[in-house]
Amino acid sequence: MSCNWGTELWDQFDNLEKHTNWGIDFLERYTKFVKERADIELSYAKQIRNLSKKFHLKRSREDDSRFTWCVAFAATLQQLNDMAAQREDLADCLHTQIACDLTRYTQELKAERKTHFQDGRRAQQHIESSWKQLESSKRRFERDCKEAERAQHVSDRIDLDNKADGEKQKQQAAEESRKEYVTSLNQFNQDQHQHYRTLVPVIYQRIQDMEERRIERIAEAMRSAAESERKVLPAASRCLDAMMDAAESIQPRKDTGHVVEVYKSGFDPPGDVEFEDYSANMRRSISESSYLDNRAEGRKHSRKLWPFLRKNKVTPPHTHTHLSLDLVGSSGRS
Amino acid sequence: MSCNWGTELWDQFDNLEKHTNWGIDFLERYTKFVKERADIELSYAKQIRNLSKKFHLKRSREDDSRFTWCVAFAATLQQLNDMAAQREDLADCLHTQIACDLTRYTQELKAERKTHFQDGRRAQQHIESSWKQLESSKRRFERDCKEAERAQHVSDRIDLDNKADGEKQKQQAAEESRKEYVTSLNQFNQDQHQHYRTLVPVIYQRIQDMEERRIERIAEAMRSAAESERKVLPAASRCLDAMMDAAESIQPRKDTGHVVEVYKSGFDPPGDVEFEDYSANMRRSISESSYLDNRAEGRKHSRKLWPFLRKNKVTPPHTHTHLSLDLVGSSGRS
Repeated sequence: MSCNWGTELWDQFDNLEKHTNWGIDFLERYTKFVKERADIELSYAKQIRNLSKKFHLKRSREDDSRFTWCVAFAATLQQLNDMAAQREDLADCLHTQIACDLTRYTQELKAERKTHFQDGRRAQQHIESSWKQLESSKRRFERDCKEAERAQHVSDRIDLDNKADGEKQKQQAAEESRKEYVTSLNQFNQDQHQHYRTLVPVIYQRIQDMEERRIERIAEAMRSAAESERKVLPAASRCLDAMMDAAESIQPRKDTGHVVEVYKSGFDPPGDVEFEDYSANMRRSISESSYLDNRAEGRKHSRKLWPFLRKNKVTPPHTHTHLSLDLVGSSGRS
Repeated sequence: MSCNWGTELWDQFDNLEKHTNWGIDFLERYTKFVKERADIELSYAKQIRNLSKKFHLKRSREDDSRFTWCVAFAATLQQLNDMAAQREDLADCLHTQIACDLTRYTQELKAERKTHFQDGRRAQQHIESSWKQLESSKRRFERDCKEAERAQHVSDRIDLDNKADGEKQKQQAAEESRKEYVTSLNQFNQDQHQHYRTLVPVIYQRIQDMEERRIERIAEAMRSAAESERKVLPAASRCLDAMMDAAESIQPRKDTGHVVEVYKSGFDPPGDVEFEDYSANMRRSISESSYLDNRAEGRKHSRKLWPFLRKNKVTPPHTHTHLSLDLVGSSGRS
């Protein structure tokens, strides 16, 4: 079956007008779709960017960069920021390169479509006026023939002198009308032939070409949209790889080692407390044997190095035995 | 350098408390970050899903599925919907599998941390009470020695009968205090040794282990987050491939062919209009020669098939010549 609108749809002007209008509606609808998609991407990118910004560790804490988990999180946020930038690029591409281009194209297409249908309507008006011309000359010929016929009947009944003049005059008028009718008829048939064999096929073919270009343009826009989004994937993949690398680079042992570097005082734990002999000035009658129990030796106990000085907190004392049991208990839990 | 908190940071209880608290703050901060990320993904997915729904062509237009561009757009929207579903899965994974797990873990970690620092504080209280015991017995010994000394000086100046009793009594008291002081001293030194050589190393080592587990847990969460997002990419890629295929499947020629199928009336364009001879009843005096110009033949002109009947629109008629020129003109533009 032929797919040529010019020959197959010669009598479907209104339907072609409706159909191509629907096509342009779709083009506008698709453009709106792409724009809204771009807006969603832009808003998503903005949210991701803000999230990255919001959670960026304050640089005031100078020692953050010592810890691998801080570095890893900062890297994650940086990658997230890059992903936001990619989405912004996508939004920009969808908006500027696709939606705006489609809007421009739709305007051009509307103008072109208007021209084609104006041409079609003009051709129609021409053939209609040619038809009216034919009808009017046909009616005149019909009327003149009837009058000539009537004159013929009348002359059959009256004198011969006047007869020839009246009848001949009417017959001449009918003959003129007939000539004019034949001319109009020939003109109309010629116009009609040109209308259906040349003008309509040419105009409708142009409308079909326009429609095919419109569809091709939509296909192109759909390809571009998918392609521009597909371009984001490798970049996103690289960002996620970098996030994964960041997570892998976390070294708990190194981090707790850094804590030692940061906080180590360098002091040794206090040694034994020495015995202070207040009986030195007394008579040496006291047995010295118990001195053997006193193992205090070395440097003096420096109370300021005690780690547990939390004077503002008062809790009841525990016995040593109780403490040891507790440690065993908490060891079992950990 | 040793990285062991138990031996290196024995005097940094407060700093360890601060540092591990910062670690838990970070854990909560990271959890919040993951939750907010999940919310962004969910809101994005929802917007994408709504967009897909909003633009789905109304099925009331039954002939949509005839046109390749309609089918392609419907496929694009379907793929977009699938992409929304993937993002929803990602959001769910981030929220349920990562953020919620981290929240639970943080609670456990807080409880564990509390236990360790309670153990530390209890050990401190014990050594402090042992110190107080030592101080008190030392002061008593000092006082008793001074009193014994004073009794010695007094007895040197009074009678020998009372002398021995008073001095001996004081000396015995001093001897008792000395024994008690020595016991306290030994006990304290023993406690202190156990405190710094056993308790503190064990407790701080547990805190370090806890800290390393916390960091490992964060690394794991970061890996899971990146991994769950990475899983979306191949699925998204497949969706975009399908969108691309949909765009590629658009066939403008096929679509305009379908328009022919839908609208073709099957009628042929009208043939020439025939001459109607109203002079048939007249005398055959009229020249018949002009009949040769009348090429009207075949079937009657059926006016109802005319495509250009738009009676409600009235525009001035154009001449045939003007129309032809216009067509040439618009042909140049198209």
